[in-house]
Amino acid sequence: MVAELLCIGTELLLGNITNGNARWLAEQLAALGIAHHRQAVVGDNRERLIAAVREASGRCRVPITTGGLGPTPDDLTTEAIAAAFDTPLVEHPEIWRDIQARLGARGRVCSPSNRKQAFLPQGAQVLPNPTGTAPGMIWTPVPGFTVLTFPGVPSEMRAMWAATAAPWLRQTGVSEGVFASRMLRFWGVSESALAEQMADLLALENPTVAPYAGAGEVKLRITARAATEAAAEVLLEPVEAEIRVRSGAACFGVNDDSLASVVLELLRHRGETLAVAESCTGGGIGAALAAVPGASDVFLGGVIAYANAVKQALLGVPAAMLESHGAVSDPVACAMAEGARRATGATWAIAVTGIAGPGGGSAEKPVGLVHLAIAGPDGCTSEGVRFGASRGRAWIQQLTAGEALHRLRLAAAPPEG
Amino acid sequence: MVAELLCIGTELLLGNITNGNARWLAEQLAALGIAHHRQAVVGDNRERLIAAVREASGRCRVPITTGGLGPTPDDLTTEAIAAAFDTPLVEHPEIWRDIQARLGARGRVCSPSNRKQAFLPQGAQVLPNPTGTAPGMIWTPVPGFTVLTFPGVPSEMRAMWAATAAPWLRQTGVSEGVFASRMLRFWGVSESALAEQMADLLALENPTVAPYAGAGEVKLRITARAATEAAAEVLLEPVEAEIRVRSGAACFGVNDDSLASVVLELLRHRGETLAVAESCTGGGIGAALAAVPGASDVFLGGVIAYANAVKQALLGVPAAMLESHGAVSDPVACAMAEGARRATGATWAIAVTGIAGPGGGSAEKPVGLVHLAIAGPDGCTSEGVRFGASRGRAWIQQLTAGEALHRLRLAAAPPEG
Repeated sequence: MVAELLCIGTELLLGNITNGNARWLAEQLAALGIAHHRQAVVGDNRERLIAAVREASGRCRVPITTGGLGPTPDDLTTEAIAAAFDTPLVEHPEIWRDIQARLGARGRVCSPSNRKQAFLPQGAQVLPNPTGTAPGMIWTPVPGFTVLTFPGVPSEMRAMWAATAAPWLRQTGVSEGVFASRMLRFWGVSESALAEQMADLLALENPTVAPYAGAGEVKLRITARAATEAAAEVLLEPVEAEIRVRSGAACFGVNDDSLASVVLELLRHRGETLAVAESCTGGGIGAALAAVPGASDVFLGGVIAYANAVKQALLGVPAAMLESHGAVSDPVACAMAEGARRATGATWAIAVTGIAGPGGGSAEKPVGLVHLAIAGPDGCTSEGVRFGASRGRAWIQQLTAGEALHRLRLAAAPPEG
Repeated sequence: MVAELLCIGTELLLGNITNGNARWLAEQLAALGIAHHRQAVVGDNRERLIAAVREASGRCRVPITTGGLGPTPDDLTTEAIAAAFDTPLVEHPEIWRDIQARLGARGRVCSPSNRKQAFLPQGAQVLPNPTGTAPGMIWTPVPGFTVLTFPGVPSEMRAMWAATAAPWLRQTGVSEGVFASRMLRFWGVSESALAEQMADLLALENPTVAPYAGAGEVKLRITARAATEAAAEVLLEPVEAEIRVRSGAACFGVNDDSLASVVLELLRHRGETLAVAESCTGGGIGAALAAVPGASDVFLGGVIAYANAVKQALLGVPAAMLESHGAVSDPVACAMAEGARRATGATWAIAVTGIAGPGGGSAEKPVGLVHLAIAGPDGCTSEGVRFGASRGRAWIQQLTAGEALHRLRLAAAPPEG
């Protein structure tokens, strides 16, 4: 075990803030190829901080701390780490001059409490903070154990990492090669079914393949380790190719792709446009499309036809059809989709109408039943899908939006073969 | 020390996802008055998981785990916890039946790997999962040490917490006294301005008042401790009243209220209806309204007028107005709102048109500029608001939706005095 993260701050224990620093540092460590098997969070408490640092010293080579480097009485990181190794603090006059200069430049008076930030354990090196007054340290209190400390302010921590810590870690030789990884994204397959289909790949050691489940979407992360990034990428290739062959159309994208971004890119490439007609999602499909930068050259807009009167007035759904089939039906879904195409002039239209619950269900049309229609140059197809009521309204709305985009993707570019 | 969090998942160590579960659980523990001094993250690794559980058993009474309860081979939490206390796993046939029924209802075939989720350590109770197939457990392997396990999927974890874990924790007496808390919600005021306005209240010890910042929304949590829940509620009252007096119309709700739910309730009470005309949000305002159960008796729908042609065709915005003022302008915003009222027959309409970026900005109309219009029985008002470009497209879209609902709330029920 090489590195560990120790994030310090009572605000993390109270749930006031999310630990975004841990995620960012974890990504940086992975990119450097530095193994890291544990993260911990403790509050601004001297004894618990000392205990956490001592524990880490029995387990890892490079503990990385965030938080607790400020001037206030609850900033205890430096003194607790010094105390954990019975080492006195000594003042670094150059840090104190730098703090005075920085605060002076901002028109602030230096308070005595700021001076505390100029003290580091005897023998520690300064880890400079280019953008703030709280420097960190690089300190090896015992052989084979080097502590790196960072402030909790994300922008300062990141600047210090890039300027000093990352180069230092690269040259120490603690990294075991370099990692490259890709996240493949799937729709229309369950996590367990995908895991079984890929069982032999999930057992690989380099690259590794790991499944993740989201709301309807399932992901597989492929991670390879090699001496160089290029070599790691070469290891990824055949595994990605094999996964894509096995999973077929269920694999819709990689890394930052979303169903919406993939659909927009596909239609953009074909010079086609898209409109929506949404009942039970109330605008959620449009919002997912509009979340993608540059959506406007493909996505024209559409109608939120929540009330039946709006389905009639803006989409031209016949009143008689609503009466005889009900709003949640294939004929109405198709009439909505065709109406949206007509009203906007789009090449394609998606329409959804369903029962998101918790009220409004019946034995014949239960909560979670949604009819999805795709209208395009070759006409319209619609189908009823049951998402089930148990996960609630937001889940049904989210799955409906994903499923509609997935169906459009398959309709616009049918899988070969 | 009472509780600890142990979040399990290699994706956390690789920095693939932020540990939002830790923050949410930390907030819940604080609200219940349960002390919690440490959080840890470990990967999907049996030996390290066993070590982390054994360590926790020497330190806390109630470790709470998230993640690793799924059906795949890297879901190891249950078996590792059992192994940490040398206890065999036993099958719970009722869990297996429930998994089969749930997957069957979704039209999915149960794979053998799903069966693994029906096994718990001998003596463990099921912690039911109302919304998914992975149940957790409540297990006391040694006296004074009770493990609670949750899946990593946030919606499932939260539902299980609310239904079973929170009531269980309340009755076990691990909390120090009884806590009652209320979350007051604000729009249109910054966290720092609110904190200054409430500085004396933030220094109170019982009840405590703590600020939380979100995307545009700011919250104040008031938490009181007393011998009984009723006594704690009595302590909350005067502090809530004082905060409401000081903050005026900026305080829009409490606890589970959202701007959308508050607006819908206000209009429902008045027997009025609402439509939307959305350009830059692409359906996000409609989706926020449709997220509220029972929205359909107030929210009629509207138009996603992303392209200018749709603004003309479905909302009757004159082409000449688009040409002379540009789509991002007060006249167009008002024409959109009036058009949505006319097309749907709604009492009120919200319209937004702006530049969400990253492209499309100019010196005169920069990224982040949004014009918001509210049309109602007494005509239409519109204003341009600059949300700034620095936090990106999703932020601008989210703030636009909140601001539009906030303005409708003030327009429909102007503050007295």
